[in-house]
Amino acid sequence: MYLSKVIELIKKGRSGFINSEMIEDINIESAASLDKASKNQITFLEESNKIRDFISGTNVSAIIIGKNELSINEIKKRKASIIIVENPRIAFSEVLKIFETNFKPKKGIDVSANISRESVIGNNCYVGPNVFIGKNSTIGSNNYIFPGVVISENVEIGDNNIIFANCVIFQNTKIKNNCIINSNTVIGSEGFGFIPQNGKWKKMPQTGGVILNNEVEIGTNCCVDRPAVGFTEIGEGTKIDNLVQIGHGVTIGKNCAFAAQVGIAGGAVIGDGVILAGQVGVNNRVKVGNNVIASSKCGIHCDINDGEVISGFPAMQNKSWLKSSSVFKKLPELAKKLRQLDKK
Amino acid sequence: MYLSKVIELIKKGRSGFINSEMIEDINIESAASLDKASKNQITFLEESNKIRDFISGTNVSAIIIGKNELSINEIKKRKASIIIVENPRIAFSEVLKIFETNFKPKKGIDVSANISRESVIGNNCYVGPNVFIGKNSTIGSNNYIFPGVVISENVEIGDNNIIFANCVIFQNTKIKNNCIINSNTVIGSEGFGFIPQNGKWKKMPQTGGVILNNEVEIGTNCCVDRPAVGFTEIGEGTKIDNLVQIGHGVTIGKNCAFAAQVGIAGGAVIGDGVILAGQVGVNNRVKVGNNVIASSKCGIHCDINDGEVISGFPAMQNKSWLKSSSVFKKLPELAKKLRQLDKK
Amino acid sequence: MYLSKVIELIKKGRSGFINSEMIEDINIESAASLDKASKNQITFLEESNKIRDFISGTNVSAIIIGKNELSINEIKKRKASIIIVENPRIAFSEVLKIFETNFKPKKGIDVSANISRESVIGNNCYVGPNVFIGKNSTIGSNNYIFPGVVISENVEIGDNNIIFANCVIFQNTKIKNNCIINSNTVIGSEGFGFIPQNGKWKKMPQTGGVILNNEVEIGTNCCVDRPAVGFTEIGEGTKIDNLVQIGHGVTIGKNCAFAAQVGIAGGAVIGDGVILAGQVGVNNRVKVGNNVIASSKCGIHCDINDGEVISGFPAMQNKSWLKSSSVFKKLPELAKKLRQLDKK
Repeated sequence: MYLSKVIELIKKGRSGFINSEMIEDINIESAASLDKASKNQITFLEESNKIRDFISGTNVSAIIIGKNELSINEIKKRKASIIIVENPRIAFSEVLKIFETNFKPKKGIDVSANISRESVIGNNCYVGPNVFIGKNSTIGSNNYIFPGVVISENVEIGDNNIIFANCVIFQNTKIKNNCIINSNTVIGSEGFGFIPQNGKWKKMPQTGGVILNNEVEIGTNCCVDRPAVGFTEIGEGTKIDNLVQIGHGVTIGKNCAFAAQVGIAGGAVIGDGVILAGQVGVNNRVKVGNNVIASSKCGIHCDINDGEVISGFPAMQNKSWLKSSSVFKKLPELAKKLRQLDKK
Repeated sequence: MYLSKVIELIKKGRSGFINSEMIEDINIESAASLDKASKNQITFLEESNKIRDFISGTNVSAIIIGKNELSINEIKKRKASIIIVENPRIAFSEVLKIFETNFKPKKGIDVSANISRESVIGNNCYVGPNVFIGKNSTIGSNNYIFPGVVISENVEIGDNNIIFANCVIFQNTKIKNNCIINSNTVIGSEGFGFIPQNGKWKKMPQTGGVILNNEVEIGTNCCVDRPAVGFTEIGEGTKIDNLVQIGHGVTIGKNCAFAAQVGIAGGAVIGDGVILAGQVGVNNRVKVGNNVIASSKCGIHCDINDGEVISGFPAMQNKSWLKSSSVFKKLPELAKKLRQLDKK
Repeated sequence: MYLSKVIELIKKGRSGFINSEMIEDINIESAASLDKASKNQITFLEESNKIRDFISGTNVSAIIIGKNELSINEIKKRKASIIIVENPRIAFSEVLKIFETNFKPKKGIDVSANISRESVIGNNCYVGPNVFIGKNSTIGSNNYIFPGVVISENVEIGDNNIIFANCVIFQNTKIKNNCIINSNTVIGSEGFGFIPQNGKWKKMPQTGGVILNNEVEIGTNCCVDRPAVGFTEIGEGTKIDNLVQIGHGVTIGKNCAFAAQVGIAGGAVIGDGVILAGQVGVNNRVKVGNNVIASSKCGIHCDINDGEVISGFPAMQNKSWLKSSSVFKKLPELAKKLRQLDKK
């Protein structure tokens, strides 16, 4: 696509177009990161990124950038065209859509798919090879169900969802619309509910279900368990990375983002807009307020108020944790000093 | 089911029935948690649970509760029937069984299952679509093997087991009786055995197997590896949650419970009745004694005696860890105080 | 195999044969660990291993051991044959190959495999039941693709690779030669790239791919994501254990070893020969130098120089961490002492 057309597209987009300086209306063939981009490619730069050092050596054809005079001047020396926007990442994301190959299979139900006659599939769906769909399940329209997916009985799936290969969806799961479930993820498996009795573990039947609201996306190899009664529920627009555990009876609000290997124990209640970094753990029945941010490996063992930024285990305010952690490194020194003072 | 009949059932059960006060012999249609329960439903309350606050607003028809006068009086004001037992959770678990829908498929072997002629399947099994069973494997009676399960050669499976969709069971695995393996779990994959040699990794052949004893249950997306020689073994009655790693050559005792995302490194030996909370890690070859309890994120790097309650990383006694952690928060303050004293 | 022949084999191997004392040219039927080995078996001993205590009670027929007079004398008392080598683990590994059962299936493409006509499969491959291979994919020679594997469009797989059951390989993945991917692992799923916009998450298209170089091995239930642009790449000879997350755009060097449940966030750059123990986390865009060793649960939040040995979170030098951790246990005591001094 000619650069002039790419710029038009960014102008119409949502990145907050400011200005552009086109050196040449070259054909843009693809997009790349600044450290690897070359001629006929477009890239983007966020100021905070270390990748900035690569400006000096680049021969990329066009760079999307924020309003930073220093960087802009450097890029001009490289004779690259410049597109200045409020949010370079969003502009780049819009540009990527141009170059994205469509890997979606043709609609239709593969002959090897095994679908119960007591279930209903809506219009315009792809149901791949070796998919299994049990009794009393309802699948809406425009869904992609990739090879090897197993959907149990009594599942409700709305419209425009994508369920990638080899996922397993258990009974009593309701997936609304526009959700994406990545490969090998299991939704609605039985919660880990055991009661100690005479030194053994007695099973609590897990008769509940799981609700995924609109625009929920879940990564690969995740687990979302169903509870004894009621529903495990994930709010609209929440995005979850890979290898994440959502325990039985957990309630998650809207527009949260959880990084890989996060674990939420049973019955925890997570607010809206919560961000949990990698390997964070949340104890069972804990309440995490709206817009809380927890940094990686944080262990949330008690209720957290709205808007808190937390770190460490047990979780504490991020600022305090940074200070305490920096003293932790000097503990042997402090202990020595204390012993000396004590002797005096 | 009429409430009077539900109460009869609880009386015959193992929750230690004490007393009941039935307001009305209403039809109980289902069970729910106290915060969501309403008319024609039954619920339960454990005193320690924050959910207790919902008594004041509930219109649930019946509540199973322990012997607590305060709560009982509050419930009476709500005109709910009361069933008093020693262990409300067990009573509720028994009640749930009444309302549990049976999602088990009909017995029989699906035509699309691919079973080696050199393997044997016992009576009364369900073998779902697209199941693969390799050579020289023996499957007992009354097993459920759900769609997409892959069982390799030389596997022995006893009676009454459930293997959910898309699990993979490798050679030399022995699964005894009454076990449950949840979806996408892999049993008997090769252990991570590599020997450093001239800057590269030389593979140690993993010729051993895995033994799951009776009543073992394993969650979704778990891994239980086989060792170089001998067996990785999980003791009778042990229950394991999702995304758990059991390394090669690990030995786990009876009636343990491991929460999600626990990792046990190769060769570790875990006693009976051990409880590991979420994201706990156990180093290789470490011995963990009987009835040890490790709180979430604990890192067990050395042998632990029977009955210890441990926390933190490196693992220490829970009580000490709580104290040290509370001082950790005040470290910057302590460091300041120490500097002041030093100046004097 | 007769012991004399086993010894011949070790002599020709790469373990650094030193000497042997054969008590009897007995038939060696199998290999076992020292604590479980008995007559007609062979075992090995590394000095550092606690298993050494089992020498005194063993009736194993042969022991491979390093040059340690004490142990050798003890073994002589047990009348076991002795094989002395520089590296007993490598010798044992070579011996295990003799006794390893071949579980590899016969070459050939199963009739139930669903392979696009627009894809190419090389000579001498096994493609198991219910495998799906999409358009424009190229599979080389001598590959094993086990049942239930799903390979999407535009995938390149070289020669001599093993992809175990129920793995999913996404578009734009290139797997070179001699790689092993264990069951239920997902390669090339979309990276977790979301941009905050008006309180919601806007998706960054993930148009890149994944490259696995020669001799890469990946465990079960792992995730290797593809990035927005470019490639996530894993260097030759790197070995990865189970339940590991490799984020989008990560670059990993040669001959690394990552233990189970490690998580590497997007864009991190890991050098050659890096060893990460269990549950280690690496923050996004961090650079980890060559030959770094991080102990279990370490959280790497900033760049690490070549050759560092690190621990804890935030990561620090292992030696300092051990010292600080030992003071951590005594913090309540130190705080008390400080209060006392302050009062004086």
